[in-house]
Amino acid sequence: MLLCDIGNTTASFLNEQKFHSMSIEQFLHYEPTQKTFYINVNPNLEQRLKQNPLFINLAPYFNFDTIYSNLGVDRIAACYTIEDGVVVDAGSAITVDIISNSIHLGGFILPGIESYKKSFTSISSRLKYELNTQINFDAFPQRTIDALSYGVFKSIYLLIKDSAYDKKLYFTGGDGQFLANFFDYAIYDKFLIFRGMKKAVCENFIL
Amino acid sequence: MLLCDIGNTTASFLNEQKFHSMSIEQFLHYEPTQKTFYINVNPNLEQRLKQNPLFINLAPYFNFDTIYSNLGVDRIAACYTIEDGVVVDAGSAITVDIISNSIHLGGFILPGIESYKKSFTSISSRLKYELNTQINFDAFPQRTIDALSYGVFKSIYLLIKDSAYDKKLYFTGGDGQFLANFFDYAIYDKFLIFRGMKKAVCENFIL
Repeated sequence: MLLCDIGNTTASFLNEQKFHSMSIEQFLHYEPTQKTFYINVNPNLEQRLKQNPLFINLAPYFNFDTIYSNLGVDRIAACYTIEDGVVVDAGSAITVDIISNSIHLGGFILPGIESYKKSFTSISSRLKYELNTQINFDAFPQRTIDALSYGVFKSIYLLIKDSAYDKKLYFTGGDGQFLANFFDYAIYDKFLIFRGMKKAVCENFIL
Repeated sequence: MLLCDIGNTTASFLNEQKFHSMSIEQFLHYEPTQKTFYINVNPNLEQRLKQNPLFINLAPYFNFDTIYSNLGVDRIAACYTIEDGVVVDAGSAITVDIISNSIHLGGFILPGIESYKKSFTSISSRLKYELNTQINFDAFPQRTIDALSYGVFKSIYLLIKDSAYDKKLYFTGGDGQFLANFFDYAIYDKFLIFRGMKKAVCENFIL
């Protein structure tokens, strides 16, 4: 089974246990040679995908309980195997979704970590820094790099913690592993979205 | 006494009680006709200001107790009249500084609200929204505009609240009044930076 998750910056593939990814620019020249179950949140690619019958859009096959309007299919897929918990997908944006008894209670969105960095750079050349991933949340920062890192990481941390109460936390996405480290009990699952896609395939298709 | 606070996007003036401001582009053509006490955080303007003797840089005249490296002079000025409290300057960036017994304990930086909006737009055209200033923090969002607004405003709110404990909150800057509304006890002072500048002038100059 070939699965493909198309985001804003990257297209990721899972073929049985093998994972690979490419930039959206590369994906524009990609031609599938076998049936490919995909999800896509990139409005620019919809037409192209529809034109090739080897691309099968999985979006209509998720049977997901939510009242959220136009919830992104990537967020649905990430939540689809979780019965109870908070799902954090930390990529170009950070999406956070809360699930209870397999019902989606809602969710929120923050910029991705890279995006925070770009914001600072565009505000002032004096705020152009890599972030300090070892930042200490228990002491007020005493230099710019720490002031930026504390602002970004602790504000993300506090908002996720606030939404979690005693729920389990599931992280995925490029910065998922890093953000999971701020929490005592958190699960990082690189393939959370693919697990959801696989479940949708298995519920709906005879392979 | 003419005071001038030069930021990344705007130059603001206070002449006795009269306030006015101009964009940095306009300020490039501004010629002072009287002695102007200024603070400036815009690295591109430093040379130009030094060339005109009517411009008097106030930065060396703040007697401010901090171990923070290279603390921006606008943040020093905003804190300069506060003995105990948390000072939030919400402009193109949001700076938060903690003062206890007239000692600066440290501080942190977040993107400004406009900057969060720009981040979302540059991540995906699907995230291009005005933010909902009436967002409810007590219910998980059920649509994109609320998911973005909850992410931005509640993450800013929680981090400021976390740093404040029982201290008084002082807000200034373009989004200061709006952010102050999220807190039960907060003071909004449009002229906080000018108050600090005035104090530095009075301590150091015979006018």
